[in-house]
Amino acid sequence: MERIIASIITIGDELLIGQVIDTNSAFISQELNKIGVWVKRRVAVGDSKEEIVRALDEESRDTNIIIMTGGLGPTADDITKPVLADYFGGKLVMNEEVRKHLVYLFEEVFRRPIIERNLKQAEVPDVCTVLPNARGTAPGMWFEKAGKVFVSLPGVPHEMKGLITTEVLPRLQRRFEMPFIGHRTLLTAGVGESFLAEAIQHWEEKLPAHLKLAYLPNYGMVRLRITGWSTSKAQLEQELDTEFATLKKLVQEWLVIDEDATLPMALSKLLRSKNKTMSTAESCTGGYLAHLITAIPGASNIYKGSIISYDNEVKISQLQVSPVILQKVGAVSEEVVLEMAAGVLAKLNTDYAVAVSGIMGPDGGSPEKPVGTVWVAVGNKQKLVTQKFQFRFDRDRNIEMTATQALNLLRKFIVENA
Amino acid sequence: MERIIASIITIGDELLIGQVIDTNSAFISQELNKIGVWVKRRVAVGDSKEEIVRALDEESRDTNIIIMTGGLGPTADDITKPVLADYFGGKLVMNEEVRKHLVYLFEEVFRRPIIERNLKQAEVPDVCTVLPNARGTAPGMWFEKAGKVFVSLPGVPHEMKGLITTEVLPRLQRRFEMPFIGHRTLLTAGVGESFLAEAIQHWEEKLPAHLKLAYLPNYGMVRLRITGWSTSKAQLEQELDTEFATLKKLVQEWLVIDEDATLPMALSKLLRSKNKTMSTAESCTGGYLAHLITAIPGASNIYKGSIISYDNEVKISQLQVSPVILQKVGAVSEEVVLEMAAGVLAKLNTDYAVAVSGIMGPDGGSPEKPVGTVWVAVGNKQKLVTQKFQFRFDRDRNIEMTATQALNLLRKFIVENA
Repeated sequence: MERIIASIITIGDELLIGQVIDTNSAFISQELNKIGVWVKRRVAVGDSKEEIVRALDEESRDTNIIIMTGGLGPTADDITKPVLADYFGGKLVMNEEVRKHLVYLFEEVFRRPIIERNLKQAEVPDVCTVLPNARGTAPGMWFEKAGKVFVSLPGVPHEMKGLITTEVLPRLQRRFEMPFIGHRTLLTAGVGESFLAEAIQHWEEKLPAHLKLAYLPNYGMVRLRITGWSTSKAQLEQELDTEFATLKKLVQEWLVIDEDATLPMALSKLLRSKNKTMSTAESCTGGYLAHLITAIPGASNIYKGSIISYDNEVKISQLQVSPVILQKVGAVSEEVVLEMAAGVLAKLNTDYAVAVSGIMGPDGGSPEKPVGTVWVAVGNKQKLVTQKFQFRFDRDRNIEMTATQALNLLRKFIVENA
Repeated sequence: MERIIASIITIGDELLIGQVIDTNSAFISQELNKIGVWVKRRVAVGDSKEEIVRALDEESRDTNIIIMTGGLGPTADDITKPVLADYFGGKLVMNEEVRKHLVYLFEEVFRRPIIERNLKQAEVPDVCTVLPNARGTAPGMWFEKAGKVFVSLPGVPHEMKGLITTEVLPRLQRRFEMPFIGHRTLLTAGVGESFLAEAIQHWEEKLPAHLKLAYLPNYGMVRLRITGWSTSKAQLEQELDTEFATLKKLVQEWLVIDEDATLPMALSKLLRSKNKTMSTAESCTGGYLAHLITAIPGASNIYKGSIISYDNEVKISQLQVSPVILQKVGAVSEEVVLEMAAGVLAKLNTDYAVAVSGIMGPDGGSPEKPVGTVWVAVGNKQKLVTQKFQFRFDRDRNIEMTATQALNLLRKFIVENA
């Protein structure tokens, strides 16, 4: 079976002046990988006819699929559509289905008058198959030329994602003969990538050629993913199950969850399985812990709320932290996070709680408590445990690392004190 | 003056399987732009000799500068260095300065024994100028060929950033004669991209060729940026000031801030300028509002905290929301957000507050209150105003849109009730 190869072209001057970070390419790469398509290159070009045409020529040279995003908006700098019409030898025509969808969006959803400029978004090259965009105004477009598939999608991430999932992937799977692809993913915490690599080296070296291991490190956690491909689905699934079982044993000590889930998801699942609730008392993370938990659908079953005491006044009035202790040892201390945790457990009446206090930077550090100093307390009404962390990153990364470590500490507490 | 043009090549299989999001390219683009270099293309390729050589050939065809990142680590898949030695006709030799730096790092900083694999990082092609990497092990490398500059940098973001700032930009400025580049940016809210385009069309059409306008939409807000280039700095600054003043007048109705800042930054700045504080009472956004505000350095001057009442019990016990009203009209109602706002203003004793309650999905909707229904209250102890929103997105976007609209509503309240 021939390998199916893709290239991704992202279009827009905003990518070249560094105004936006391209997250679309990573999403598209992941999704294509899952159905067995190998992404060979990714190119970003500006809103220029010459550059778009050059990219189409070069990227289609030795690939089967070319996915484009961006340049489909209603403003003057969005030139992708006429360029594509020209490139594939067609002309722009009004598409009645898209026009109806546009009118519906403006009349029923946006409740704004539709103007000429918006209606032009219903014009598509007459040589493409329209991919309806339920989430927005610009439709996706599917072209074929010399046995290759070219897909143009809007650059707005959630519109692009909707089109990839509902239109592009199913069509590609029908259009090309793909191998079966299978994945097994687990999440570890508290161990570095190179140490992990050392621990599983012997097993990894013996993996058959059609199974590949990827290390996916992110904020103090490492995800491990086995990807396999084969013409026999049954055989592949069995091989994956066997190898995954071995891998799980090898990393048992650091295992957070044996599926493709994030730490907040793992914690939510754990709480749900025990029918327990949690709350947070946050200072330095300023609501980020709460956000990570509540971003997961169904959070209301396990999460009651948070008292964010960014100001010491709030620690005293809402969490009953002792002003004397605050005065004596400062807000970033073991004593204070213990009181915060006890305070929120009592106030919000939850089974578990996590409390954090630290210095995220860039200002606020001192020789005794430099930027990156963090205290975390986790536990229940019977028992609390604490841990001190010393990070050394910038503000954003310190907030992210604190949240990760705090949630993992709570997760471990729940597992060990069940 | 000839325009100086660059292309960026990022190297690594992890970019092609969607494992990591490329943030390096955006940073490099921004920094090159600031010194007057125009980035024409960005390409990501895998750890393959054939693909790296193809990218070097293609990207140097019509550019002056090629910046590469990645593929310089100590593991087997990092092949960039031998490929570059070969491409520029040199061979790998041990560099004494880099070797000393490596020994220093392992002995004094990492406090780990240095192994053969690490020492190999001190080998560089004998045809390059070494750019010392104070922040890490892999040095940067500067090559020249046929009047073009090629720079290879490590992919670790903070090492790459250090090298760009201290080594690459100053050397490029000495090597090439650059035009002056200037930007003016503003942020609007509450108006669509196409409506905005309509409102400023006449002005935009008359912009001189060396001034360009970019539309940067994001979650119900649109940033507008004018970029200009010229050989005369004084003339360019004056032109930019004049055009920016006109643009500001044209978009006055929707103007959030007339600088390159986010909505949370604009709100923080406004509060700081008035020496006022705020708090949040969040239900459906679950801490995300608080996070947006506290992610900004110095938030403690304007932000006291939040009561996140994800559970109705917490609304009653911590925010004094009436159980009778909750029972009668439900948590997602004007009455409840008014009580939440009043509750948090009293409890945390702040000048302003914002309260939100809504249904973010995917579950929890009903015919009367479908997913995406949100009530927001903002104000101070004297006056509160409310607004109902109806979003129609997925959970993540509903949280993002709710936060944007709620913060903007508070910002407008502060401006109008000063």
